[in-house]
Amino acid sequence: MNPHNQLNFSGGPGVLPACVLDEIQQAILEVPGTRLSLLGISHRSDWFASVITELEDNVRTLLGLGTDYHVLMLQGGATQQFSMVPMTLLRGQSKAAEYIQTGYWSSKPIIEARREGAVRVLWSGQESSFNRLPGDNELAFSEDARYLHYVSNETVEGLQFHRVLGRDDVPRVCDMSSDFLSRPCEAERFALIYAHAQKNIGPAGVTMVLMRDDLLDDANTDLPDFLNYRTQINTHSNFNTPPVFSIYVTLLVTRWLLHQVGGLARMDGINQQKAGKIYRFLDASDQFYRGRAAAADRSLMNAVFDLPSPELETRFLAESAEAGFSGLAGHRAIGGIRASIYNALSSTAVDQLLEFMAGFQRKNRH
Amino acid sequence: MNPHNQLNFSGGPGVLPACVLDEIQQAILEVPGTRLSLLGISHRSDWFASVITELEDNVRTLLGLGTDYHVLMLQGGATQQFSMVPMTLLRGQSKAAEYIQTGYWSSKPIIEARREGAVRVLWSGQESSFNRLPGDNELAFSEDARYLHYVSNETVEGLQFHRVLGRDDVPRVCDMSSDFLSRPCEAERFALIYAHAQKNIGPAGVTMVLMRDDLLDDANTDLPDFLNYRTQINTHSNFNTPPVFSIYVTLLVTRWLLHQVGGLARMDGINQQKAGKIYRFLDASDQFYRGRAAAADRSLMNAVFDLPSPELETRFLAESAEAGFSGLAGHRAIGGIRASIYNALSSTAVDQLLEFMAGFQRKNRH
Repeated sequence: MNPHNQLNFSGGPGVLPACVLDEIQQAILEVPGTRLSLLGISHRSDWFASVITELEDNVRTLLGLGTDYHVLMLQGGATQQFSMVPMTLLRGQSKAAEYIQTGYWSSKPIIEARREGAVRVLWSGQESSFNRLPGDNELAFSEDARYLHYVSNETVEGLQFHRVLGRDDVPRVCDMSSDFLSRPCEAERFALIYAHAQKNIGPAGVTMVLMRDDLLDDANTDLPDFLNYRTQINTHSNFNTPPVFSIYVTLLVTRWLLHQVGGLARMDGINQQKAGKIYRFLDASDQFYRGRAAAADRSLMNAVFDLPSPELETRFLAESAEAGFSGLAGHRAIGGIRASIYNALSSTAVDQLLEFMAGFQRKNRH
Repeated sequence: MNPHNQLNFSGGPGVLPACVLDEIQQAILEVPGTRLSLLGISHRSDWFASVITELEDNVRTLLGLGTDYHVLMLQGGATQQFSMVPMTLLRGQSKAAEYIQTGYWSSKPIIEARREGAVRVLWSGQESSFNRLPGDNELAFSEDARYLHYVSNETVEGLQFHRVLGRDDVPRVCDMSSDFLSRPCEAERFALIYAHAQKNIGPAGVTMVLMRDDLLDDANTDLPDFLNYRTQINTHSNFNTPPVFSIYVTLLVTRWLLHQVGGLARMDGINQQKAGKIYRFLDASDQFYRGRAAAADRSLMNAVFDLPSPELETRFLAESAEAGFSGLAGHRAIGGIRASIYNALSSTAVDQLLEFMAGFQRKNRH
């Protein structure tokens, strides 16, 4: 037990449950039920096949997802999905894809999609420095779009959609990298969901893709095998050597979600409570701590705020580090302070942070 | 210390040095010099930048490689390189690339290269079931080839080139996945070397690419960023979240090679000795254990052999597992027995295996 791991407010890779770290530590020397180190077991072993099967099942159970969805574990991060999605769904198509630009991370896939076909940006928050999300009245979804792509939680700006967007007759594609498995998400209303692991569900090195089978019916599969969803589906994410370690850790996190936490509704309750405490504290700080995001669009995962001056921010980061906290610097793209409070960040750690913040404010009131 | 890890003859992911496993175990809770778990440290931290720098330096030192070479750590396995190489060097070119087909793994990149441009297969061992490698008199290299691609060690068939192929005026591209850093390799005679980690240098999830800078001078860089070598070079393998864990383990293995083993010439000496013992044993077994590869082309990494009958092979695998060995089944593509003896597999473990094999032969002599 290393207490600093529990005060890790990093935007990711970040905190993992302490019990999962303990299990991994053991598995580095010997995985229970095998005689071998986690790093020395073949990806063609029965053991690894059972890891993949259990992980797929756990994700289906957590999200209430039917067998018409494939659950894939791929490499390359969400970034690879920025390309795989339009290579598969947009290349050679006459229809345009609709993208919503709500921040740093939703801007990147637009660039990659434009390499492959026509893209219509339905709404952009660029002019308002991405401090809010669009309302329904600002979004004119077309029935003839090839698909709709959006990002459910903007990690950098601390914005999160608290509803499902789009039309039921146009496939929804969603980058849920930073809030996947943090709450129930009506997964079956999406045709494709992708999420890298290193926020809520594991370490860097693996990305989960959920895909409704019929999405590939008229899709492009003339692609290198490793970029071809069909190849990955047919081989159960074991086309070439998968990132065994990262996949196993992700399995342990899903077990924790199912058996310790008790499912996604419970996880959501805990996350709501944690975020609620932080935002109420910001709102009561008399403009010492200034939240960036519009109140209705605040993220349950990343609370982003500024202090009255850059000097105070530098001091805040130094003193918080001294007090044992880490990862509180805002994203290098926008600066400021960011408290990321993913699934494994405990309510106690939030309390400790708020206590520190209250003390810092008392000492530095201007 | 788990003794079974040291008797792991798997084709990969396989054995890692015991001291490295101990260090990783510690790092799961706390990385020395940081206060955090290896799984919770940001890839944008100073610590991770120093990991990348030291790993690049270690590889340069081990191979005597100049600064005109880039050292990259990428995702997607060697499989991704099967595509990235021709996407970059062959797409839109009039010249053909030359490929040598010496086994299971050199066959796959030929398929992916053909998607991108003209490919000339200089030699194929398919008709002789890949039981030998071509001699120099069988290889007519052209001066007008775009590049030459070959695989230095065929893990499945147990074949290894013990010389550098090709011409100095045509860029050499080599998949060294299964013998990288197992011996000095005259790295500067190659324009591009790639190797996934999970044989000699780390766990699954990261692939090393060494690339001479001028190779990109007239190369195609109109590619998605994650498939663009230039992007990866410019960001020091940190374009999007890299597989931090796998990269750190690989760093620890290079430290072991440098400081415990004492460099690649020493490693080669040990590997020669281990392989020598096995092949002498096979040759002296009176055709009970029958090596697959032609004597001159035998691999120092993978000794592949058959027993007199499938029934004996089944019994051999069962009894060897009972005796504590693992990973001895041949590749699913060709069956038989395979003893993979990568860097971290000790000479003592080889002795134990040979003792077991001698006993098995005595009991089952026909």
